[in-house]
Amino acid sequence: MAIVLGPHQYGKAETRLVRVVRNGERHELVDLNVSTALRGDFDAAHLEGDQRNVLPTDTQKNTAYVWARRTVPDPIESWALSLARHFVDDVEPVSAARVEVERFGWQRAEVAGEPHAHTFLRTGPEVRTAAITVGPDAVHVVQGLKDLVLLKTTGSAFRDFLVDDLTTLQPTDDRIMATSLTARWRWTDPDAGTDWNGAASSVRTTLVEHFATLHSLALQQTLWHMGRAVLERHPGIAEIRLSAPNKHHFVVDLTPFDEPNPNEVFHADDRPYGLIQASAVRDDAADAGDAWLPFTGLA
Amino acid sequence: MAIVLGPHQYGKAETRLVRVVRNGERHELVDLNVSTALRGDFDAAHLEGDQRNVLPTDTQKNTAYVWARRTVPDPIESWALSLARHFVDDVEPVSAARVEVERFGWQRAEVAGEPHAHTFLRTGPEVRTAAITVGPDAVHVVQGLKDLVLLKTTGSAFRDFLVDDLTTLQPTDDRIMATSLTARWRWTDPDAGTDWNGAASSVRTTLVEHFATLHSLALQQTLWHMGRAVLERHPGIAEIRLSAPNKHHFVVDLTPFDEPNPNEVFHADDRPYGLIQASAVRDDAADAGDAWLPFTGLA
Amino acid sequence: MAIVLGPHQYGKAETRLVRVVRNGERHELVDLNVSTALRGDFDAAHLEGDQRNVLPTDTQKNTAYVWARRTVPDPIESWALSLARHFVDDVEPVSAARVEVERFGWQRAEVAGEPHAHTFLRTGPEVRTAAITVGPDAVHVVQGLKDLVLLKTTGSAFRDFLVDDLTTLQPTDDRIMATSLTARWRWTDPDAGTDWNGAASSVRTTLVEHFATLHSLALQQTLWHMGRAVLERHPGIAEIRLSAPNKHHFVVDLTPFDEPNPNEVFHADDRPYGLIQASAVRDDAADAGDAWLPFTGLA
Amino acid sequence: MAIVLGPHQYGKAETRLVRVVRNGERHELVDLNVSTALRGDFDAAHLEGDQRNVLPTDTQKNTAYVWARRTVPDPIESWALSLARHFVDDVEPVSAARVEVERFGWQRAEVAGEPHAHTFLRTGPEVRTAAITVGPDAVHVVQGLKDLVLLKTTGSAFRDFLVDDLTTLQPTDDRIMATSLTARWRWTDPDAGTDWNGAASSVRTTLVEHFATLHSLALQQTLWHMGRAVLERHPGIAEIRLSAPNKHHFVVDLTPFDEPNPNEVFHADDRPYGLIQASAVRDDAADAGDAWLPFTGLA
Repeated sequence: MAIVLGPHQYGKAETRLVRVVRNGERHELVDLNVSTALRGDFDAAHLEGDQRNVLPTDTQKNTAYVWARRTVPDPIESWALSLARHFVDDVEPVSAARVEVERFGWQRAEVAGEPHAHTFLRTGPEVRTAAITVGPDAVHVVQGLKDLVLLKTTGSAFRDFLVDDLTTLQPTDDRIMATSLTARWRWTDPDAGTDWNGAASSVRTTLVEHFATLHSLALQQTLWHMGRAVLERHPGIAEIRLSAPNKHHFVVDLTPFDEPNPNEVFHADDRPYGLIQASAVRDDAADAGDAWLPFTGLA
Repeated sequence: MAIVLGPHQYGKAETRLVRVVRNGERHELVDLNVSTALRGDFDAAHLEGDQRNVLPTDTQKNTAYVWARRTVPDPIESWALSLARHFVDDVEPVSAARVEVERFGWQRAEVAGEPHAHTFLRTGPEVRTAAITVGPDAVHVVQGLKDLVLLKTTGSAFRDFLVDDLTTLQPTDDRIMATSLTARWRWTDPDAGTDWNGAASSVRTTLVEHFATLHSLALQQTLWHMGRAVLERHPGIAEIRLSAPNKHHFVVDLTPFDEPNPNEVFHADDRPYGLIQASAVRDDAADAGDAWLPFTGLA
Repeated sequence: MAIVLGPHQYGKAETRLVRVVRNGERHELVDLNVSTALRGDFDAAHLEGDQRNVLPTDTQKNTAYVWARRTVPDPIESWALSLARHFVDDVEPVSAARVEVERFGWQRAEVAGEPHAHTFLRTGPEVRTAAITVGPDAVHVVQGLKDLVLLKTTGSAFRDFLVDDLTTLQPTDDRIMATSLTARWRWTDPDAGTDWNGAASSVRTTLVEHFATLHSLALQQTLWHMGRAVLERHPGIAEIRLSAPNKHHFVVDLTPFDEPNPNEVFHADDRPYGLIQASAVRDDAADAGDAWLPFTGLA
Repeated sequence: MAIVLGPHQYGKAETRLVRVVRNGERHELVDLNVSTALRGDFDAAHLEGDQRNVLPTDTQKNTAYVWARRTVPDPIESWALSLARHFVDDVEPVSAARVEVERFGWQRAEVAGEPHAHTFLRTGPEVRTAAITVGPDAVHVVQGLKDLVLLKTTGSAFRDFLVDDLTTLQPTDDRIMATSLTARWRWTDPDAGTDWNGAASSVRTTLVEHFATLHSLALQQTLWHMGRAVLERHPGIAEIRLSAPNKHHFVVDLTPFDEPNPNEVFHADDRPYGLIQASAVRDDAADAGDAWLPFTGLA
């Protein structure tokens, strides 16, 4: 009954890297949060404190900066693939590398109605994400977005649910449905030459449109329809995962004040919240391997 | 040398109020964070625990909801004025009321290129703000915005500054300048019939345009020019305050790797940050009274 | 190549539940954040919007409250086990339930040097955690703690690491080592009658003592020794996972000011940070199943 | 009706400075967040972009580090006074300086029941604060604490309050009272040789004891009694300000489940919350000047 070293990984988290492209007077801005994690032959570092196989996390940070100098990290997917492959190919003890990138949104400031050449405004809260895994046997690209806050003021019901002794919820045919969506989708072939930015934009459009147009009987149903539509539209996507907090908006009871409240005044509550997670998968999708294991994933 | 009760106020903070307007099929959404504070004859509550003059904070919350039912809180300024006046006029012990509102941005979701009737996406991080003070002698309206994140990739220098024995900073003629702007501006006459939404939009445009176009020798200079321009354009504004963290973007030193870095790769640092605060004022502006004292202001 | 529903779960997250025990005049306080997630036969809810199998998340919240009324949730593990078993045993479509609990620390206020009967002070930032999985085939208890911030001012080195072309880090024999520790450990037999509170306290002591006393050649080594010691001391623990951000403390360069700085003045940096994750496992440990899959885990 | 430059200040915010004292093998740890702001003759920087009077915020950071090397910043008050005086005395254009310090709590780790020589655990969430203003005419020291979370499970009522048409709150004779206290107190004579650490500890004890022992008829009453007691005990304190969010704990209604709930199970709500602010002042206290104007105070 020996005690042995189990799964382990290490890396540099949240390198806040900004890349400016100076095409003459009209600049471009790429604003990233980059995290890298390495997996491999690091047993001696744990067992004996022998660091000979350990590339410092400080070096991982340097590498991200140098990579961003050599290649503009846009789209983030191909840049992160290159960075992850470098760690696996060029650093002997590394058998797998995980690179995760968050890209913050910016738009050009307008001056006198025209987009300005070098001034930008942060957009959000939505963030675009990429998670790359390069392993000994497989390479995975998981694209995504998070903090996409969506709300519909009607077109959502919740009724005919399971009722037990502790159920007090009343059914409703018309409620606000709101969420802060996290979506991630895995591509079958990371080297298929996908137009990463175009694909991300298209998936986002599909998600938003189906959230808007499906008359929802439950958030579960909405998620499934959003996910299925993405897979239908993008044959190259093997699976998609959707995580959606149900951001409750409660109709305020104004009857004590003789005020009607026909779904007009709501309290947006913080906690607790429902959390619904669902996925759509191709039934012949290749095994995901470590595609879903984040750099924080061994906690 | 007696010990006496000093300044005091109390209220309900951060009521998360969402108001939906159902004009047929095309809905409108107003998403607010409302805080109210009352000032007045509450000495007995402190000194003896006598609550007879104390309108519960729970009632302040109820009142905000009822007010939002009766009047759509858009623009937020006139709605908050009405709410504050109610507390002062209708609740005997209240001599002054402070109402602060944050309004979160939403835009309509697009479906097939058309704005959807009842589905919305959160925009941001920018938030629009209003701070109303109704007192025995004066009424103040302070409009504002916060978390407007601006960045320019060139057109900013910092040189010829004061150098003492502990100065190591090198002058620069070209740097990234970035901030998360908070701006608040006080109107001379809250009852002048100002188009609050139009004014807020116009001020925002002025701020963004001057941030973009001034070749900046210092963030101080930029703030002053932004503020002065707002006052020049809006005769009804008595003063404007600008608070701007200098969100440092440091050029990464790539010389150890024989990589040039001509202002292309930056590290966006978290802390510490510079904090620059400046204001522009009309020299004949009436006294601000409690206009700048927030509901959190006695801490 | 059909598109099918993949993994899914749903529940109520972050119910902030406080339980007071009134043993005469001396009260006890249990302050919890409870999240529940159900897995099971919910396909129809996704595919057709048919909610007949769906116990509302609102009911899950009610259930947590009722459970806390019937049984004081201390220790959190046995209480959460009971709650999870209720969902699986009593709610037909539920095949597995996940219950996660955070318990916030409080100590009695002192008055005139004596612990007070009913007044408490929050302690922290450390939080005690439990994650229970009750499935069709197995029951898992993962105990843990998070946000335990540890720092040693000496007794930590980092040298003789792998150096590549992009490495600029200098080796050091003496540095500050600091982390905000997350630790989770899985028990082999959830029904062995473990003294949960005693065990959690003992594991914590072991972790802190080994962090303090090991002369560390790397954070990896420290984590391994901490984890191994826990397993050596607690035969009932099958595995332990440790996640440790390397909270960098950089020696400030004071040489421009002719000031020596013999490891006395440091800058505590925010981002980026190293992130080291390691685990110790018994080589005959039974399969973990879903023990490590959190209620947020399908994102 | 000219537009003129109004109030302004600038500085370096949130320098995270850690100072280690190495008295042989037994080390001491001082963990600070330092913010400085300068006020003075900086008009040209705003109006013309002329930086000749502007000491860079980077230099302010350097200065904090050098000051911490030369003098251990414990107590924080005397150290911050020295730093602020340096800016005013040694930097010509500076007429006033504000230095604010947050000190994070740490305790020694225990190993085999004994305090360890160089390993520490973070305590909290409570933070000790100091705010120093050195101006042309006066020097102010405001000591404080924040995030001291207090809760009493009984001994608090709220009844006989003002009731208007929109009041629905029911009176109660027994409720949970909880807050996250911010307290700040201004000393009459910053150079009186006050034992800053001893005084801070004593004030804290007084605050906690009066929170615990007063049978509270309202949070207002509790704050007043806490504040008055501090001034009674410390003749050197001119005034104290207390800011207390009412962290609502609502009794959960379990009657639908035929469960009694005699103040045992509560929901700890997030928002909205009451916010009560009160102060106790000596009636002969000298004018506070800028003592209460923080480095963020012009927003």
